[in-house]
Amino acid sequence: MTLAIGSGNIADFIGRFGIGKRASSAVTHDGTGYFAVTPQAPYHAGLSTAEQAVQLLAKADARLADIGSGKNKLLFVAIILADMGDYNAINEVWDDWVADIAPPARACFEARLASPALKIEMIMICAAPATPQP
Amino acid sequence: MTLAIGSGNIADFIGRFGIGKRASSAVTHDGTGYFAVTPQAPYHAGLSTAEQAVQLLAKADARLADIGSGKNKLLFVAIILADMGDYNAINEVWDDWVADIAPPARACFEARLASPALKIEMIMICAAPATPQP
Amino acid sequence: MTLAIGSGNIADFIGRFGIGKRASSAVTHDGTGYFAVTPQAPYHAGLSTAEQAVQLLAKADARLADIGSGKNKLLFVAIILADMGDYNAINEVWDDWVADIAPPARACFEARLASPALKIEMIMICAAPATPQP
Repeated sequence: MTLAIGSGNIADFIGRFGIGKRASSAVTHDGTGYFAVTPQAPYHAGLSTAEQAVQLLAKADARLADIGSGKNKLLFVAIILADMGDYNAINEVWDDWVADIAPPARACFEARLASPALKIEMIMICAAPATPQP
Repeated sequence: MTLAIGSGNIADFIGRFGIGKRASSAVTHDGTGYFAVTPQAPYHAGLSTAEQAVQLLAKADARLADIGSGKNKLLFVAIILADMGDYNAINEVWDDWVADIAPPARACFEARLASPALKIEMIMICAAPATPQP
Repeated sequence: MTLAIGSGNIADFIGRFGIGKRASSAVTHDGTGYFAVTPQAPYHAGLSTAEQAVQLLAKADARLADIGSGKNKLLFVAIILADMGDYNAINEVWDDWVADIAPPARACFEARLASPALKIEMIMICAAPATPQP
């Protein structure tokens, strides 16, 4: 499969992973991957935000592997916290996760998420294979 | 028009649609399109969030067509709700909209928007033609 | 350095700028750049949001230059305000900044940011050189 670079056509391959009725768990196109990632579902309100962050980053590692990428190929991450008071706590988890890589660009803001038990969500953009891997 | 792939130069074509003084309504570059979309303006506070979502997705369909893309080429969508209490209501509208496609990756969070009458806004990233269509 | 377009491999060059332990200040990949930008640090709570926006956009100009891009190559900007009541004030600063270019697509929402003194943050996506500049 080839990409129609410079031809005026859309590069025709869009890779979708974990296709559901509402959303795909990740989508890749033309060398870039996009996804949002949450802690392990069902979300457990009894966990701290840092504990949810550990779950989330483990899921991110798996998601990145699924799409042929990896944390060392992250380009940008937006961290959404339900409570900015947890900023220092999740940074400890984050800093540990990126300690062995050159980290992506990053933003962080506070917002209420889809479930009261969901304390953190991240949007990730990464380098990904342009076409399916053998 | 060709893209300077691998040459060290910026691919020189950036497609801008609905260019205003403050923002363009959509921008495309190198096979990817970016835009934010709101309900029909002027925003009508008397409409429910679900009704605003219907308007917004109709505008998204038109916007996607304008830039040579389509909802089946969406890569990522961030849904911003002024009130997360409307999550289930807008999901019904969303699920209907994506029922006939493999849906994009998706995130949803709550945030106050630019106008009190504006109850929902979406940020969309899609596959788009790399160069102008004939 | 060449990009493995259409080969099934990840284009291997990821450009990272201002690499820190927690994040890079900007990352480029395959002709696109990603970064978040804040006012001048340490943030000064005594400044108005508009004054912080002026600082932020000066930093954005420098960041864009660092990565071989420019404000005229911005594709999408998400503006995050700690208080949406400052919307009109920051639009004046924004409109002035984009007065001499065809502006990017744009979204704006309100969210609490990482520090109480931080009143505005922006996420920017831009066209950028695909490979390092000579």
